[in-house]
Amino acid sequence: MKSYTEHLTFTTKNRRDYINITNAVADIVRKSGIREGLCLVNAMHITASVFINDNESGLLRDFDDFLEALAPHEPINKYRHNRTGEDNGDAHIKRTIMGREVVVAITNGKFDFGPWEQIFYGEFDGQRPKRVLVKVIGE
Amino acid sequence: MKSYTEHLTFTTKNRRDYINITNAVADIVRKSGIREGLCLVNAMHITASVFINDNESGLLRDFDDFLEALAPHEPINKYRHNRTGEDNGDAHIKRTIMGREVVVAITNGKFDFGPWEQIFYGEFDGQRPKRVLVKVIGE
Amino acid sequence: MKSYTEHLTFTTKNRRDYINITNAVADIVRKSGIREGLCLVNAMHITASVFINDNESGLLRDFDDFLEALAPHEPINKYRHNRTGEDNGDAHIKRTIMGREVVVAITNGKFDFGPWEQIFYGEFDGQRPKRVLVKVIGE
Repeated sequence: MKSYTEHLTFTTKNRRDYINITNAVADIVRKSGIREGLCLVNAMHITASVFINDNESGLLRDFDDFLEALAPHEPINKYRHNRTGEDNGDAHIKRTIMGREVVVAITNGKFDFGPWEQIFYGEFDGQRPKRVLVKVIGE
Repeated sequence: MKSYTEHLTFTTKNRRDYINITNAVADIVRKSGIREGLCLVNAMHITASVFINDNESGLLRDFDDFLEALAPHEPINKYRHNRTGEDNGDAHIKRTIMGREVVVAITNGKFDFGPWEQIFYGEFDGQRPKRVLVKVIGE
Repeated sequence: MKSYTEHLTFTTKNRRDYINITNAVADIVRKSGIREGLCLVNAMHITASVFINDNESGLLRDFDDFLEALAPHEPINKYRHNRTGEDNGDAHIKRTIMGREVVVAITNGKFDFGPWEQIFYGEFDGQRPKRVLVKVIGE
């Protein structure tokens, strides 16, 4: 069994942002040399997500509207967590809705993906460097 | 390390549907010959889910009611995504709530499951052939 | 490839509870002797979750408030599932929101975690023994 690990770092321009990281992860899978296996991609911070969906800008804004309606950023005092001095109580919940991680099948050295699957980094408390882990195991 | 991959195809009768795929996935695990490892099961389309829950028809309807209240199909123009000509903006969100994938432990050649765990395919924009990936790795 | 499996059992004091299980899972990883691989941690019951977030008590109460607003326990007859004689229809939905499982990278024999990542067991229908599966595969 082989394994290969890399960490990616993202600093978003906005508090909330959605970045297509498919190519960056594919590069790591290529470097791993693994032909058959699994690739784990997860946010290493608890106010960010990794998820798979469609690379369509309207859809990404729909997700953002949906999340902000469900767990709005303001009022800040809506969240007990923010009594610690933080203002990111909403971001912990938004990340939970979108998910921490994806596990992707690697077949013949490539993502075994459907036609529209793309990997996204979802940031809910950004504007500072935050990391994503990519680990490939297999043969 | 061994690995084994198959794709299943589902064409649902209704736009939204919930199909118990536990036996179909168990057959693939059996064919893999793998005794100890992990089994990834994921929707390959971004408007469908794979999730684990109870095989109880009332519960599946509760999930459907819950999802439709949270991200209703209509009005179609509620979703920016639908400006592209699609009418499945809601389905992308519903699938995200229910999850893209499950990873299941294989122990002694079988699902290492609790008493009520069953694997479901959740379809939110069906009536056409859509695929599910099953990949088993281990020994 | 090596693999190692253990099951943990939790009986919570309250119907809903959130337990930090990071150390218990880390002990199992240590016992596995695996240095590079993946660790699956999942609830084996369909009314409980395993998720990763911050070990901050206010945040855990925010999650509980959020879930109870989204899928309230009462009125019991709100859920078709409860017509079977159960009263845990809400718990199936809450667990789905929080997620069944996490997959964690093991690098150099340890969780490859960000600074705040902690593993939690989320119980939504407790006060009886329920199990969590931990399976580590790798080398």
